Amino acid sequence: MQNATTAQPAPDHGAAVTLPARKGKALFLTEGQHITIVNRFGSQVVDTWAFNRSDINEFMSMEHSRAAMLKLSPAIGDTMVTNYRRPILTIVEDTTPGIHDTLIAACDRYRYQQLGGREGHENCTDNLAIALGEIGIEGAVTPSPLNLFMNIETASDGRIAFLAPVSAPGQYVTLRAEMDLILALSACPQDLLPVNGLGPTDVDFIVQP
Amino acid sequence: MQNATTAQPAPDHGAAVTLPARKGKALFLTEGQHITIVNRFGSQVVDTWAFNRSDINEFMSMEHSRAAMLKLSPAIGDTMVTNYRRPILTIVEDTTPGIHDTLIAACDRYRYQQLGGREGHENCTDNLAIALGEIGIEGAVTPSPLNLFMNIETASDGRIAFLAPVSAPGQYVTLRAEMDLILALSACPQDLLPVNGLGPTDVDFIVQP
Repeated sequence: MQNATTAQPAPDHGAAVTLPARKGKALFLTEGQHITIVNRFGSQVVDTWAFNRSDINEFMSMEHSRAAMLKLSPAIGDTMVTNYRRPILTIVEDTTPGIHDTLIAACDRYRYQQLGGREGHENCTDNLAIALGEIGIEGAVTPSPLNLFMNIETASDGRIAFLAPVSAPGQYVTLRAEMDLILALSACPQDLLPVNGLGPTDVDFIVQP
Repeated sequence: MQNATTAQPAPDHGAAVTLPARKGKALFLTEGQHITIVNRFGSQVVDTWAFNRSDINEFMSMEHSRAAMLKLSPAIGDTMVTNYRRPILTIVEDTTPGIHDTLIAACDRYRYQQLGGREGHENCTDNLAIALGEIGIEGAVTPSPLNLFMNIETASDGRIAFLAPVSAPGQYVTLRAEMDLILALSACPQDLLPVNGLGPTDVDFIVQP
């Protein structure tokens, strides 16, 4: 794994903003802008969504992206597409071992009820709705997310297992916006399965011109 | 592969209805009812969706079902769940080799535009909307479908490939409704990729008490 110090984003990147553990955030990106998501402690999954800024009904779709990429999971140079099959986000840099997930739904209140979680457990689905609400957007669906850093093992017989992330502290992914879009992130609050290794932690993100 | 004659549904099943090649159909099932989808020629993919009959916003979700099943694709005894993580359909019988797909989006007008298809090419996304409209339902989203009989090969490196179905003529899958629901089927009109081996064909379905 890459050394945590060398994995830090280059100093000419914009200012880092903290996305607190268990929380979500939505922001606007213009076409050509980049966002870097830094896994500060290496062990945090970040559910990631993107919506066309001028049409909330067009959004990054994992089921359309898999068909476009002919891969289960994107790597550097791969472009995710929308439900209208248009490019929306490209992975332009990835200092992690490249383990991300496109298969698993965002966690939600029903998931934590089934797992015996406490009443009102934070969840990525509500985080998305809250984050979109904070920028004035209501009524969006919850697309299947791009789960950055999430380690879902797929066996040759098709069985899957939820494992801890393999990224090292400070490793990061940089995404380029392929259209004007709304990006939403959720630092996954899952603490009843080992998907966030150490338990939920803060991550950082940096928007670059 | 199973002999086509022995693969025919038992004679006590209900009357077979033809779903014409390239077309969609939606119908109501009550909890506990079964539907058998017969691949008459063995080579036809059938995109399958299910919606809670009393709440169109709750629907069978592949990304939630994979998390529930811990499998990429369901087999006999596996239950698909909704976006609210409730059981909705169970595979109770499957005389095919068990190759189905949960990874790939329904085809749509954009897909055929990109593949150079003719103007107005039929597609599973529009088939779903038309079929729901025929029973008076408007405004549903297009969930990622359960693609019965679809043969998406997944390599150990995560690369995927679109192949022809491996089912034999007359082989079938039987699903049990786990709630009162709307079931929608589309005999996939894809004729520019080899997913429907011989090209689009009719299939049959049988609703049983």
